[in-house]
Amino acid sequence: MEINLISDTVTKPTPEMLSYMVKARVGDDVYKQDGSTNELEIAVAELFGMEAALFFPSGTMANQVAIKLHTQPGDQLICERTSHVYLFEAGGAAFHSGVSCALIEGNRGRITAEQIEEYCTDASNIHTPQTSLVCIENTTNMGGGACYELKELEKIREVCTEKNINLHLDGARLWNALVAKSQHPAQFGKIFDTISVCFSKGLGAPVGSVLLGSKANIQKALRYRKLMGGGMRQTGYLSAAALYALKNNVSRLQRDHYRAKQIEMMLKKKSWIKEILPVQTNIIIFNCQESGQDILLISKLRQKNILISEMGKGWLRIVTHLDYREVMHEYVMETLSKLEL
Amino acid sequence: MEINLISDTVTKPTPEMLSYMVKARVGDDVYKQDGSTNELEIAVAELFGMEAALFFPSGTMANQVAIKLHTQPGDQLICERTSHVYLFEAGGAAFHSGVSCALIEGNRGRITAEQIEEYCTDASNIHTPQTSLVCIENTTNMGGGACYELKELEKIREVCTEKNINLHLDGARLWNALVAKSQHPAQFGKIFDTISVCFSKGLGAPVGSVLLGSKANIQKALRYRKLMGGGMRQTGYLSAAALYALKNNVSRLQRDHYRAKQIEMMLKKKSWIKEILPVQTNIIIFNCQESGQDILLISKLRQKNILISEMGKGWLRIVTHLDYREVMHEYVMETLSKLEL
Amino acid sequence: MEINLISDTVTKPTPEMLSYMVKARVGDDVYKQDGSTNELEIAVAELFGMEAALFFPSGTMANQVAIKLHTQPGDQLICERTSHVYLFEAGGAAFHSGVSCALIEGNRGRITAEQIEEYCTDASNIHTPQTSLVCIENTTNMGGGACYELKELEKIREVCTEKNINLHLDGARLWNALVAKSQHPAQFGKIFDTISVCFSKGLGAPVGSVLLGSKANIQKALRYRKLMGGGMRQTGYLSAAALYALKNNVSRLQRDHYRAKQIEMMLKKKSWIKEILPVQTNIIIFNCQESGQDILLISKLRQKNILISEMGKGWLRIVTHLDYREVMHEYVMETLSKLEL
Amino acid sequence: MEINLISDTVTKPTPEMLSYMVKARVGDDVYKQDGSTNELEIAVAELFGMEAALFFPSGTMANQVAIKLHTQPGDQLICERTSHVYLFEAGGAAFHSGVSCALIEGNRGRITAEQIEEYCTDASNIHTPQTSLVCIENTTNMGGGACYELKELEKIREVCTEKNINLHLDGARLWNALVAKSQHPAQFGKIFDTISVCFSKGLGAPVGSVLLGSKANIQKALRYRKLMGGGMRQTGYLSAAALYALKNNVSRLQRDHYRAKQIEMMLKKKSWIKEILPVQTNIIIFNCQESGQDILLISKLRQKNILISEMGKGWLRIVTHLDYREVMHEYVMETLSKLEL
Repeated sequence: MEINLISDTVTKPTPEMLSYMVKARVGDDVYKQDGSTNELEIAVAELFGMEAALFFPSGTMANQVAIKLHTQPGDQLICERTSHVYLFEAGGAAFHSGVSCALIEGNRGRITAEQIEEYCTDASNIHTPQTSLVCIENTTNMGGGACYELKELEKIREVCTEKNINLHLDGARLWNALVAKSQHPAQFGKIFDTISVCFSKGLGAPVGSVLLGSKANIQKALRYRKLMGGGMRQTGYLSAAALYALKNNVSRLQRDHYRAKQIEMMLKKKSWIKEILPVQTNIIIFNCQESGQDILLISKLRQKNILISEMGKGWLRIVTHLDYREVMHEYVMETLSKLEL
Repeated sequence: MEINLISDTVTKPTPEMLSYMVKARVGDDVYKQDGSTNELEIAVAELFGMEAALFFPSGTMANQVAIKLHTQPGDQLICERTSHVYLFEAGGAAFHSGVSCALIEGNRGRITAEQIEEYCTDASNIHTPQTSLVCIENTTNMGGGACYELKELEKIREVCTEKNINLHLDGARLWNALVAKSQHPAQFGKIFDTISVCFSKGLGAPVGSVLLGSKANIQKALRYRKLMGGGMRQTGYLSAAALYALKNNVSRLQRDHYRAKQIEMMLKKKSWIKEILPVQTNIIIFNCQESGQDILLISKLRQKNILISEMGKGWLRIVTHLDYREVMHEYVMETLSKLEL
Repeated sequence: MEINLISDTVTKPTPEMLSYMVKARVGDDVYKQDGSTNELEIAVAELFGMEAALFFPSGTMANQVAIKLHTQPGDQLICERTSHVYLFEAGGAAFHSGVSCALIEGNRGRITAEQIEEYCTDASNIHTPQTSLVCIENTTNMGGGACYELKELEKIREVCTEKNINLHLDGARLWNALVAKSQHPAQFGKIFDTISVCFSKGLGAPVGSVLLGSKANIQKALRYRKLMGGGMRQTGYLSAAALYALKNNVSRLQRDHYRAKQIEMMLKKKSWIKEILPVQTNIIIFNCQESGQDILLISKLRQKNILISEMGKGWLRIVTHLDYREVMHEYVMETLSKLEL
Repeated sequence: MEINLISDTVTKPTPEMLSYMVKARVGDDVYKQDGSTNELEIAVAELFGMEAALFFPSGTMANQVAIKLHTQPGDQLICERTSHVYLFEAGGAAFHSGVSCALIEGNRGRITAEQIEEYCTDASNIHTPQTSLVCIENTTNMGGGACYELKELEKIREVCTEKNINLHLDGARLWNALVAKSQHPAQFGKIFDTISVCFSKGLGAPVGSVLLGSKANIQKALRYRKLMGGGMRQTGYLSAAALYALKNNVSRLQRDHYRAKQIEMMLKKKSWIKEILPVQTNIIIFNCQESGQDILLISKLRQKNILISEMGKGWLRIVTHLDYREVMHEYVMETLSKLEL
């Protein structure tokens, strides 16, 4: 038995989810005739208190369509230096939308209203790219699952409103933030122009993201989705899994967070650990005292059938998730407790 | 009971296909760890005698990635005026690849080697867009399911080779051509640089297309698929349906063609019919003697629960498919036989 | 002495124009502080009765910025199959603006309101590129200097207004049309959203085009010009030449037209001539009775120091212009009168 | 008399330069038949020991074409956070080339080989943009005219060669670096794949930049220049000015540097000055002790007919140039010596 702690994207549907999937009410979703997909979109829009929603084959496409919705070629968007939209979407902002990224050095992937204000370009200057969008990631992937405070997001909203800039939330792991911070989706729906959420990470569905926004934006997004090749036919099987996940797998994220916290505490005791980013959700990022120990640790854990990943420059990452069950956790904790480098 | 003859994209999985789907061996396909998807890709590549294959959420994305593979921004591709890549992919060639389409007036959507030669631009002229790709559609959608002769395709290959131009096949309905013309996939694999095939039309799978090409091109396509937002996680459920379709639903396309032919013969007897494009596969395109009869016919058939579509300028379209079963066909034939405008 | 009848782009400034150039009042035109350029822009805007104007290094850039002003990536523009914006701007519409060209088969490069109406796509259909712009060329280059009737342009305007589509005029040789048809610039200023005119063809300035439009559009164009690399510093030397040309070289185009007409009449007498497109302005397009005679004619004329150009498929082109003076014309006429193939 | 120290782009041709301009040997440069432009291109290529050169209407277009030459859409280029290609070319890298900028925090606009190595992405990772180009600016504009050491540039070349990345130099003010550091153009020609140099800043020509590179790259650049709308007709008048500048105005940059140094020393004595970036060439960047003093200083100098510019966050800029003559300098020095805030 292999214990994969590399990412929360590796989860596979449970039998319950599968049996829910095959009962999907399907139709041609390109023409919005797929019952389960329509149900999912309505459910998520209501949850966030937003006007409309649209199903996407991936979070990357949902984010990239959001960027296209809010920008013109030649514009710039503001995001954190390590954010997913800049670093892990294959250069999509420039490719699809002709948009530059003004990269801010954040705190564990989070940026402040003050920084955003500083990076906005002067709209009357024809030399500089025009700032038309701010992208926030919550929780942050490269920042080790760090969450934003609502207060800071509200300040960011104010800056954006004042400067007539749109605000998008990459909420691939927003479910984790909601659970960790006891926040409500509607609080986010009030702040952002568009939000993408993902069902194939913590929630455990096989495929699928949803983009939320105003009716007008989602109507445009439907065209962009077709343009991007994201118009699929009987998507209901995928949407049904997402619906199941939404009903059954949100509150259980607490268990992932709890286990991540336990792993953090265990690692803290290790003499060979140098630094651990304080765990807020389901991601543990840490490094070792000495160069080479990172590779050694990965290798030793692999011998014990435990897979973790490296992030460059000696940083390592452990991610807890739906398929990381109690029995595995006990085994991992025991293994770590005994492990010496 | 509604009989939908609008398109072959409306089919829904049978219970057999569904039970095959839930048994999929899944993994994270972004990292090529999804068993069923890998199996599908290998099977299709072997069938066509091509080096490699890649699963896509849609035929549009498969085609658009192929265009990107073969062109540089500013280039031009040659295609028929009504071809899907130009007319029904939302302007994608220009949007994604910065590529212009040199539009040829073809014969039922088919273009000739001679025409292609004529439309090629002079590579040494810095004023004109450079021609780097020819896109062929087989069977043609807007041409009413017309098929190419292999001989013409071979001539086109020669022109392309001589002029150092790539050749892509949009094979969304290639399965229909193979069956109608008793051709073999490998004959196409030899001629084209890349081929896209679709599983959600005639073959009846819910979602999915595959792009075929050389190893090097498919390796690049993997990156472009990620860039386009087509990197999905546990795609095995979709691929399993495609695998099932490949094994069970190809040869049965003959029945769709037979029924289309019968409908054609019935329509020929009608005094209010003006012209029918000779049926070659599963698409019947026709128009009526008098203006207004097209709308009247659609309306009269809708009263009988039979849905057909209009294509503009008085042309109407009927498409037979997997979910159009014998009992429905008998009812449609009887309805048509009695119908007067 | 070589007589170059290949294009009207080969003209060189006269001593009078040169002495006007060196007296230019210059400044940094990126900041709109160049006196002569500002004077030119105001003069041309007033002439056409349009709100504003902007100087460009080339007609290609003026046209491409106009296309960008009026479209969104993924849109389509409607133009004639052989129009400059499609065929001789290096694929720019797709490259810069992500825009497809719906190519109409016109009459000598001219298209009709009826054709435009037919080619407009349905704005509610998410599959098709959206039509947002019509580009007209007057006079037509590949159509042999043919001119539009104002009535047809007014009909086109109506179609565009009704369908909420913008209308751009590529007026690289509009001066020739104005003179040939006794039309006034203001008649065009009323019809089009933007117009580009060129000073380096018939008018004989070394470099420069101007784009005309509303204040809002020209304000945006200033940014796009910078983006395209068309922001130059002390452009006054070039603008002064254009100002000189505007004052002194417009009405004299009649002489170019008269000479072109005389050449046409001379060619008509030749037994080896097959067809001549009726000359309307300064371009004579014709072909020869027998294959090979085109190359032979070019070669025989070259021996007499007369250069003419071929356009493909046996068509040849002669263009009269400012530097083609009376003494040259007499020599050309005499040479043609004696010439046998 | 107004003394403009805002930028070195404000210079106007001297009578000598003008009389050289009107003697230009001109032709149609789109077809490379302009004598003076060809002469300029050959002269600059020889000076840098590079294979070929091409004239451009602006440095922005020369840089943007270089970026296009070296990259594919979706790639990333590495540059300093305040570099001209990112901040002052209107978002062109993303607009024209679909390229992202990995922004490095440099030292006065200069980046190191080590930093570049750190920012290179892993070519095998399909999630990240691929790094294909490094852009260096020398002297740096926002860094106050700071120059690179050749040693560092050679190290950067090594990193790029090892990682198969191209290296472009934005040499808009390279002439200043050459003079200040007693370097030779050929030393730069050996290191970079492409170099852009400008004639309308320190050298005082009205318009024009040149891009240098291999024959193959310049051949491609000719097409891209046409595509960008940079193909102009009789450019010889502009090229002649550049030729004149190249022969007469390079070594005199020492005087601009000397005067800048004198201004720096004068400012150092002022109690209200907080920090001055050590002057290396013709740019003086500084700030004041107290907030508000920047605006006050600009205003007091304007009353004395001396114009300087602000750069944001309290930083001010003074630029010396060809049109800033000795008598003006004496007046400025005297004014500064008396000035109190």
